[in-house]
Order: sequence, then structure tokens, then C-alpha cells
Amino acid sequence: MSKKLPTRQEDYSAWYNELVKRAGLAENSAVRGCMVIKPYGYAIWEKMQRTLDDMFKRTGHENAYFPLFVPKSLFEAEEKNAEGFAKECAVVTHYRLQNDPDKPGKLRVDPNAKLEEELIVRPTSEAIIWSTYKNWIQSYRDLPLLINQWANVVRWEMRTRLFLRTAEFLWQEGHTAHATATEAVAETRQMLDVYAEFAEEHIALPVVKGVKTPNERFAGAEDTYCIEALMQDGKALQAGTSHFLGQNFAKAFDVQFANKEGGLEHVWGTSWGVSTRLMGALIMAHSDDEGLVLPPKLAPIQVVIIPIYKTGELDALIERIRPIQQGLAQRGISVKLDARDTERPGFKFAEWEMKGVPVRLAIGARDLDAGTVEAARRDTKQKLQLPLADVVDSVDKLLNDIQLNIYTKAKSYRDAHTTRVDTYDEFKAVLDGEGGFVVAHYDGTSETEELIKEQTKATVRCLPLNEPDEDGVCIVTGKPSTRRAWFARAY
Amino acid sequence: MSKKLPTRQEDYSAWYNELVKRAGLAENSAVRGCMVIKPYGYAIWEKMQRTLDDMFKRTGHENAYFPLFVPKSLFEAEEKNAEGFAKECAVVTHYRLQNDPDKPGKLRVDPNAKLEEELIVRPTSEAIIWSTYKNWIQSYRDLPLLINQWANVVRWEMRTRLFLRTAEFLWQEGHTAHATATEAVAETRQMLDVYAEFAEEHIALPVVKGVKTPNERFAGAEDTYCIEALMQDGKALQAGTSHFLGQNFAKAFDVQFANKEGGLEHVWGTSWGVSTRLMGALIMAHSDDEGLVLPPKLAPIQVVIIPIYKTGELDALIERIRPIQQGLAQRGISVKLDARDTERPGFKFAEWEMKGVPVRLAIGARDLDAGTVEAARRDTKQKLQLPLADVVDSVDKLLNDIQLNIYTKAKSYRDAHTTRVDTYDEFKAVLDGEGGFVVAHYDGTSETEELIKEQTKATVRCLPLNEPDEDGVCIVTGKPSTRRAWFARAY
Ligand SMILES: [Zn+2]
Ligand SMILES: [Zn+2]
Repeated sequence: MSKKLPTRQEDYSAWYNELVKRAGLAENSAVRGCMVIKPYGYAIWEKMQRTLDDMFKRTGHENAYFPLFVPKSLFEAEEKNAEGFAKECAVVTHYRLQNDPDKPGKLRVDPNAKLEEELIVRPTSEAIIWSTYKNWIQSYRDLPLLINQWANVVRWEMRTRLFLRTAEFLWQEGHTAHATATEAVAETRQMLDVYAEFAEEHIALPVVKGVKTPNERFAGAEDTYCIEALMQDGKALQAGTSHFLGQNFAKAFDVQFANKEGGLEHVWGTSWGVSTRLMGALIMAHSDDEGLVLPPKLAPIQVVIIPIYKTGELDALIERIRPIQQGLAQRGISVKLDARDTERPGFKFAEWEMKGVPVRLAIGARDLDAGTVEAARRDTKQKLQLPLADVVDSVDKLLNDIQLNIYTKAKSYRDAHTTRVDTYDEFKAVLDGEGGFVVAHYDGTSETEELIKEQTKATVRCLPLNEPDEDGVCIVTGKPSTRRAWFARAY
Repeated sequence: MSKKLPTRQEDYSAWYNELVKRAGLAENSAVRGCMVIKPYGYAIWEKMQRTLDDMFKRTGHENAYFPLFVPKSLFEAEEKNAEGFAKECAVVTHYRLQNDPDKPGKLRVDPNAKLEEELIVRPTSEAIIWSTYKNWIQSYRDLPLLINQWANVVRWEMRTRLFLRTAEFLWQEGHTAHATATEAVAETRQMLDVYAEFAEEHIALPVVKGVKTPNERFAGAEDTYCIEALMQDGKALQAGTSHFLGQNFAKAFDVQFANKEGGLEHVWGTSWGVSTRLMGALIMAHSDDEGLVLPPKLAPIQVVIIPIYKTGELDALIERIRPIQQGLAQRGISVKLDARDTERPGFKFAEWEMKGVPVRLAIGARDLDAGTVEAARRDTKQKLQLPLADVVDSVDKLLNDIQLNIYTKAKSYRDAHTTRVDTYDEFKAVLDGEGGFVVAHYDGTSETEELIKEQTKATVRCLPLNEPDEDGVCIVTGKPSTRRAWFARAY
């Protein structure tokens, strides 16, 4: 723990990579582009999963599990979706290995065990799921069908980055079917709201809710809604998407239902997902040059207690600390007592700082005699003397304060880095200067969007929902516009 | 729901297949050998997962996640393990599709996107995990390493059966590393005990704990411990395994640690797993000709309330039922009120019977006026009048009784179908008669074991732990034996 991280200022990218490793979150594996999620990182992901899963169930969804593999003929049924993912598909072609006759002790693919039809490792599950829904849906009474799946998916990527872009990642994918377009759109928007609430209240991550332009839409969707967040290097990150699929998959897989009048109609679909990419957002939005900063609601360890003692006095001190530890645990606070006698307090401080534990309590016999406990906040590094008498209440309140402060800080940063511009020069100057979101009029055409992307590397992150229309002119072509888009360079 | 199941007597196999479908647990998918786990089945699996996960954490394990793919060169490093799984490996050879020039709108594998090294879809994760542990373990201070993973795995199977044998299945796999053989063996045995406790207390499934013969050992293990259960058709089912790996994987992947004296040693390993196969065990052990019978601890719905009413009186009745429903929910009982006005009570009774809900409350206005509620137990089909005044306590007690009764019934069946025999003729007669476990002496050689398997289709399920030695003679060869083995025909 003695070695310092590269600073964000020096090299944001190196800072991120080092932090992910040093905090014990994840590492690269022997498989190109696939990561190992280490126990501490996985514990955070588990907290995310548990919270989201509860939110999905409260909104009426059930979990199920569909196959990892998609036969090629099903995969290609929805053409736009297939085309969108074709270039990043891992393909299973054989189902057996055999001893390599040329290399003793080695194996080779058995040429006689070639599949008649190749299997695609799911990059997303619409195809396999809609081919199943065909058998599950006959009548309006079978609708809505509200299903979610927690799964791994594979999208072959050339340039990968821990959590942010990996060949295999973990996610959830909701897939719902409805009798009307209105209901499906309402579901799409509801799940966007669920994602936004989760991001803001649990990850402490302020997000903009919006709709994607056709260029950035999910392959096979009629509309893609998203939440977009800002990282500390001024780049945006798409943190979740919710798609209105129209009747595209219902038509591709011939999923029809008998309506109340007895007529046959294709059903309307949605799909929505968040992934381990959220881990990347969490890390990049809040952490600092000393390591991870975790919002208390997602911290596997919320409070670490470090005994401060002279040689030989540890056991006696621990006896006095136990009631504090137990009091916190009884309040439902996740607390760890770092009683290692092999490391000095300074080393422990740095280690738990690196791991982003929200509150550190350093407790010595003298403090206890004086009826106080020294607390340190990870977010502000502020130190506080807490009265021993109500240490549990104080810590509980402190955790709430930290959760709120982390959000507020990220929100201030985001607001300070969201710039309205009216000319292309200003647009470029902001991007090359402080970065962040640039809010500008453009003529709404794919051509202009692509031109801007080529010239500035910025994309339309979204057209925000709930923003009033505004007349203006395109910063590039001067053509009329009725709405500002949020642009940014993005992960 | 009107159609009856085939009876167990008529056709046990058809009964099982139909039950799995009709109870909404799982179905076959468009992918050969892969199943879709439907919401009701997945809800049971989730309860299993949650309970097991808590047990793993209480015994000091942490979750992590390792890649789905294993490069062939890593896969073949531990030769016995590789050999054991080589014949059932799905292999990824390509990472891209392209438009098929011969078939517009269709895709084909891009011949230019062939992987330099093939990737095996994990049939089990020892190889990828031990190749990672190499970097995680340097010193005795890094040990023990106690990690579990929840994941999907793929073993290509020719003859598949929902839950019992599928090409893809869900499981957990624990992988631990230790400084000494003694400690690793203790871990192996501890996890066997965890599995046995889970099986008996939650699945209500009596199990025998034992050790496998070398013939039946996990490929790459020094010893395989297992829990074995008996199904209602007299066939055994291996419900969980825990392997002592010795130093095999540590040597294959060169995982060494510096001991306290500064010397280098290879570490000692274990692995242990249970899978969605447990769903098959649960279904087959307890269910009857009317459908599923679920132990209350794993039932997604523990109590279903069915209002009994005359036309027009439903709303008023529901108002009176609500307090009962809320009372049960507050006690932590999972309760569903089936207030559908479109189906008759008899239809609902059959449907919830098929789904195995442990307790059914049929409630009419007249019952409530009389201060009683009619309860029906799913396990015994017994009907009881519960006093309305303490219906929550009564139902709570009833659920405990049911959990216990289901276990006791399965245990009685198992004990009644466990036969000690001393001759090969008796052995065969029992197998061809009532089946079950046949407890017999054999000479302990692989040859005799294989001969018995060929002639009777029975295998050594295990050599039970905690059984006293006993002198005897092999039923086949007449050679001396010091211990009886448990044989059975098995899933
Ligand atoms: Zn957006
Ligand atoms: Zn056994």
C-alpha cells in the first residue's frame, strides 16, 4: 500500500487502471478481454444486484433464465439486431476435444464434432427469448409478460478496459411483452426511472435521462432511452438503457396474441439493461488520488475500526471496542474491526482509504477514557470527535451525510461541466478545454451528427426528457432546431 | 389444469417431464440440450441460492467471478481433468459473423475471424481459477483462499433431461487453497456437511454422506466426497460433491507459497459444487401424482388463499380476508391471494396443487362468521379447521409440521429402500425388485465395480462416512472386504 496511485491530473486512465487493481476490484485474465472480478469488487456488484433486483420485483417483474447460446438461424431472424451484433459474436462451432495425435498430452478440436448449426454466445438475449415467448403468449390474458434475467453476455471487443468494456460482462436484461404500444412505452420509461433512481440514490451518481438519436439506438429498437453520467475527466458514460422495441421482435419471431375482440395482433416489446459497467461509473465518478470513494449504500464495509495501542495492550483494547462494534452491527451497519497486530495504523489507514470504506474509527484507550471516538470521513478526509455515548447514532448520521455529500459533489461537478453553447467554435473550445456535457442546437440529421463526431469525437449522448422545446439554429449548418441535444466525448 | 399427470406408477419418467412443464418450472429450448428455467422454477432456485450463499459466507467464503472461457492451453494443463471433460466441451473457434454472400439477409461465420487459440466454454473452472490463483498466492499469509462463484457451465450431453442433465446448467463452484493437506481435507469435509445440512433442512431430502470410489472420482481430484439421495422410483441421485484436489492443480499451474520457514511448497486445493440438478432432486423426491410438493422453506409461495364466494360477493369477502393475508405476511410468510374472478375454486385448487404450494386456505364468509378458516396441507391432502383467532400462529406451525413431515416421509422411504444383502443373487433381486440402495460388501477393486455395473447397471454411490468397519466377503469374488458400499442405479 506504500506506493501511491498515479494522480487523476497526471494520467486519468492510468489512475483508473491502477485503482481497480490496487483496491482489489478486478484484474485482466488469461482470456483476452475477459476480466476476473475479485471478491471486493464482486461484493459491491452483489449489493447493486440485490438493490436492483428488489426494485424490479417491486415493479412486478420475475426472474427467469434463458440459454447462453443462440442458434445462428434464430440470431439472424431480427435483421437489424443481428447486423448490429454480428461483428462482435463469439461462435461455438464444435462440441468435443480429442487427444492431439501429433502432440502427446495435448488436446485438439475433434474435427468430427462439428455442429450442424453454429451457436452464438449471446451478446444480448432478444432472439432466444422472443423465440420462447412465441410459445408463452397466445392471448391478451398472457400479457403483460414481465421478465428479467441476470446473466453473462459476450461481445467481442478489440480494445477492452476493466468494467467499462470487456468481452464478457455480467448484466441484467429485462424483456417484456405488452398488448399495446402505449403500455410498452410506459414500461420502457418506468424502467428508465428505476435506473435513474438507482443511479442517483445508491451509486450517488447524478444522471440525465434522455432518448438516443437513431444513430445511437440499440439495433432492433424503435427508441432507446438512456441515463448518462459525467466522469471526473469530463467524459460521459452511458450507465443504463431501456429500449422500446415496437413490434420488431414480435414480427421477426411471429409472436401474436388474440385480443379481447378475438383478432390477432403482434405484441409490443421492451428490453432494458445495466451491467458491470456501473462498477466503472461508480469508481470513476467519485474516487480520488488516494483510492476508491464508495457511497455508503454500496460499500461492502461501511465502517472500519482501527485500534490504536501500545505493544501488549491490543487484547484489552479490543474488549473495550467490542461493544461499539456490536452496537453498529445491530443497527445494520456493516463494520469491520481490523485487529491485525502485524500492521501499523498508518498502513491500515492507507489500505482502507484505497478500498473506499466510508467511515474509519481510530480508537485508543485514551479516547475511550475521555468518552470520545475519532472518526474520519473517506469522502472529505475530515476528522471528527464523536461522543462515545451515542457513537452508533453519530455514525449512522455520518453515513447518511456521506451518501448525500458524494452525490452533491458529483452533481456540482456535473452542473459546472455542462455548458450551453451557440456556436461550433464555442462547442469545440469547451470540448478541448474543460470537457463535460455541451448543450447545443443541431439540425437533427444523422449527417450533421456524424460530421460533429468526426471533427470533435463528441457524440449526441441524448435528447433529455422533460426539457422544454427551444427554438434555435444548428451550430454547424445553421438550419432551424427546436431542441438542444447533450453532446460529450464518451466512454 | 384439467388434464391429469401420468402417474408415477404408470410412467415415472413421463410423470417427471410433464410435471416440470405443467408446474411452470422449466422447458426445453431451441438450443439442443439447453433449458429455459421459467419464473416459478427460477424462484425456487433463487431461494436455494440465497440460503446456500448465506451458509458459504458464514463459513468464511467470498464470491468472485472468473471468465466463461478457458484457453485450450490452460484447459489441458491438468491432464486428468482435461481428459475427463474433453469429450463434452463446447468450443469457440471464431469471434465474428459476416453477411453470407450466397444468402441475402443471412449471416455466416467470418473465416477471417478465426481465433489463434480455441476457447473452451467452462465445463468447470479449476483451470482458469488456478491459473489466476498463481498470481494471488505468494506466502502462507495469502492462505487459506476461500472463494465461491455462481455461474453457468456447459457440458455437452447427448441425452438430456430438464434439470437433471442439461448441456448448460447453473451452479456454484467453490475453489479454495490451503497451506496443508489436513486443512484442505477439513474444508472438503466442512462443505460436504454444509451441503448435507442444506439438503436435509431445506430440501427436506435425507442424504448419505460418503466418499466416491476412484472410478467415480472427479477428474483431477484425490478424493471426491458426495451426498447421495434416493428418488421415488428407487434410483439414486448425486446431489452435491466436494473434492479434495491434493496438489494436482497447484502443480499443474505452479502455485507455490513461501511457508513460515521460508521454504516453497505447492498449495493444497479443494473444489465443491451443487447445481440446478438440486431442482430435479427436489421435484422427484417429494412430488405426487397431483403435482409438485414443495418443502415450505423453498416454496416461493407458502400459503395461497382462495376466496369461496357467490357471484357479486367477492369484493366484500376480500375486504375480510385482507387482515389474514397481512397477518401472515407480517409473520414473514409468503402468501398469495388468488382473487381471480375468472376461475372457479376447483380449478384454482388443482392449479396450486400442481405448483406445490404447501398450505391452501379456502375462505368463505360463512367460515369467517363461524370464526374458522379451512386449511389444506399439500403434503398429506389433510383438511383442518383453523380457529380464525390465531390463524397466523396455526399456519406458521403447520408450515413447520409440513417441512418436517416431508423430510420424515422421504427418510422413511429411503430407509425402507435401503437393503443389506450378502449375496450377488440377493443384490440383483433387490435391484430388479423394489430398487433403492443396496448395501453390500465388494472387494474394492475397479474390476469388480465395473463388472457389477455392466451386469446390473448399479454403481457404487459411495462408501458412507461414519460407518463402522465390518468384515465380510465380496458378493462377486468372495474376496475379503472390510467395509460395505452403497450401490444403486442412479441418475
Ligand atoms: Zn442519453
Ligand atoms: Zn456418495
